[in-house]
Amino acid sequence: MCQLLGMNCNVPTDICFSFEGFRRRGGETDHHADGWGIGFFEGAGCRLFLDWQSSCSSPIADLVRQYPIKSTNVISHIRKATVGQVSLANTHPFMRELWGRYWLFAHNGDLKSLPALRGNRFQPVGDTDSEHAFCWLMETLATAFPTQPDMPTLTQFLKLRMGELAERGTLNCLLSNGTVLIAHCATNLHYLVRQAPFGDAHLVDRDISIDFDALTGEHDRVAVIATQPLTDNEAWIRMQPGELLVFEDGQPRRI
Amino acid sequence: MCQLLGMNCNVPTDICFSFEGFRRRGGETDHHADGWGIGFFEGAGCRLFLDWQSSCSSPIADLVRQYPIKSTNVISHIRKATVGQVSLANTHPFMRELWGRYWLFAHNGDLKSLPALRGNRFQPVGDTDSEHAFCWLMETLATAFPTQPDMPTLTQFLKLRMGELAERGTLNCLLSNGTVLIAHCATNLHYLVRQAPFGDAHLVDRDISIDFDALTGEHDRVAVIATQPLTDNEAWIRMQPGELLVFEDGQPRRI
Repeated sequence: MCQLLGMNCNVPTDICFSFEGFRRRGGETDHHADGWGIGFFEGAGCRLFLDWQSSCSSPIADLVRQYPIKSTNVISHIRKATVGQVSLANTHPFMRELWGRYWLFAHNGDLKSLPALRGNRFQPVGDTDSEHAFCWLMETLATAFPTQPDMPTLTQFLKLRMGELAERGTLNCLLSNGTVLIAHCATNLHYLVRQAPFGDAHLVDRDISIDFDALTGEHDRVAVIATQPLTDNEAWIRMQPGELLVFEDGQPRRI
Repeated sequence: MCQLLGMNCNVPTDICFSFEGFRRRGGETDHHADGWGIGFFEGAGCRLFLDWQSSCSSPIADLVRQYPIKSTNVISHIRKATVGQVSLANTHPFMRELWGRYWLFAHNGDLKSLPALRGNRFQPVGDTDSEHAFCWLMETLATAFPTQPDMPTLTQFLKLRMGELAERGTLNCLLSNGTVLIAHCATNLHYLVRQAPFGDAHLVDRDISIDFDALTGEHDRVAVIATQPLTDNEAWIRMQPGELLVFEDGQPRRI
């Protein structure tokens, strides 16, 4: 299995603190050492860092830790290979373009069967169940809507499709188009929303604390989503099996 | 205008030396300071580093300079914005998936008009002429061939389509699917092939030399393509206007 990390905010925010804890699970505090990746949306643009090395020792992870990239939507993943070999092509998050927007997807869990891809518009490059599932989601969206529908229609449609995928195995996943971040929970996914009054946070995986009050504006709102809580002194909320949350401007909405 | 750098080899090779000279042109030895990017194919996988900062001072460029990523196909680009604002979405190389393969594209030159995109399968995310041209190339390929055709058919088709684009303006560009690297020259593109007997190379943009004889195997073959020669003691070949070369296993083929 793997671990997921997501962030969705109302103002561009860096993820350095959360990532410092998260990356330690890739080979140091946990055994997810078969590659990792992180994608940052910046406006319509997206940058994606991938490495097949473990995140606790990867030079690219050092860079991401030190270079405060400000983003409103971030998805990261550290991999413990179960389906598909260790390779760059099998490293999450996966990225595709649909409706003139980039989309990022990362998945934790195994799908025992996969829905057939009907066309050839979105095809997996690697051999994971996760990338296949992502291509299927993109294909169903592209088939149903020639352009991006309004947000309620989009998220309701994705809830149904993710529900179908979840019947085939374990689907903890994060999906983003740079505006919203959608989280589907099957077994393990937690989140919290940081907003005023901000306080101290202390990492689980490293003895590091941060005082968010000194670093944030009074209207900032940051949602962090992770397989397991990243801090030990904040109130993480455990998502329920089958639950889907849409995060927008740092706020979760259940649909 | 911008500057291009490409590499195609018969064995995975790092581009650290060439990149060290090239990156200096992004704000130090030349004025292409409006962002930069580099994409590396590793097997079917592809990693793409993008930054809107200038390549001479970007922390990501420092990483790429120091972390010897081995690849058989690399495309890099430093940007001097002419069409489209400075943003991550407008930073080359651009990436799309077609036929279950990633494709990378970078372009130097302005296109005065653009062919219409007929469908919505490949849509630009940013607002450059370059990304539009890339989407059009991908669309014409996807429309003509349901799966990847053989190499002669593919490259002949691309020569015709790139010829059509070149009638609309200036098209110096590099395109790769991870197997071949295709270079189209309109005004400025040079290349060389390094193979045994290897010798010394000295950068134009920094006083650094390298002895490739000490670092390479006797059967290694590395083609480097650049807008302007990167070294001052090697025999760079200037490509001709309208010329298209297909590089495979470090060897150029004119079609």
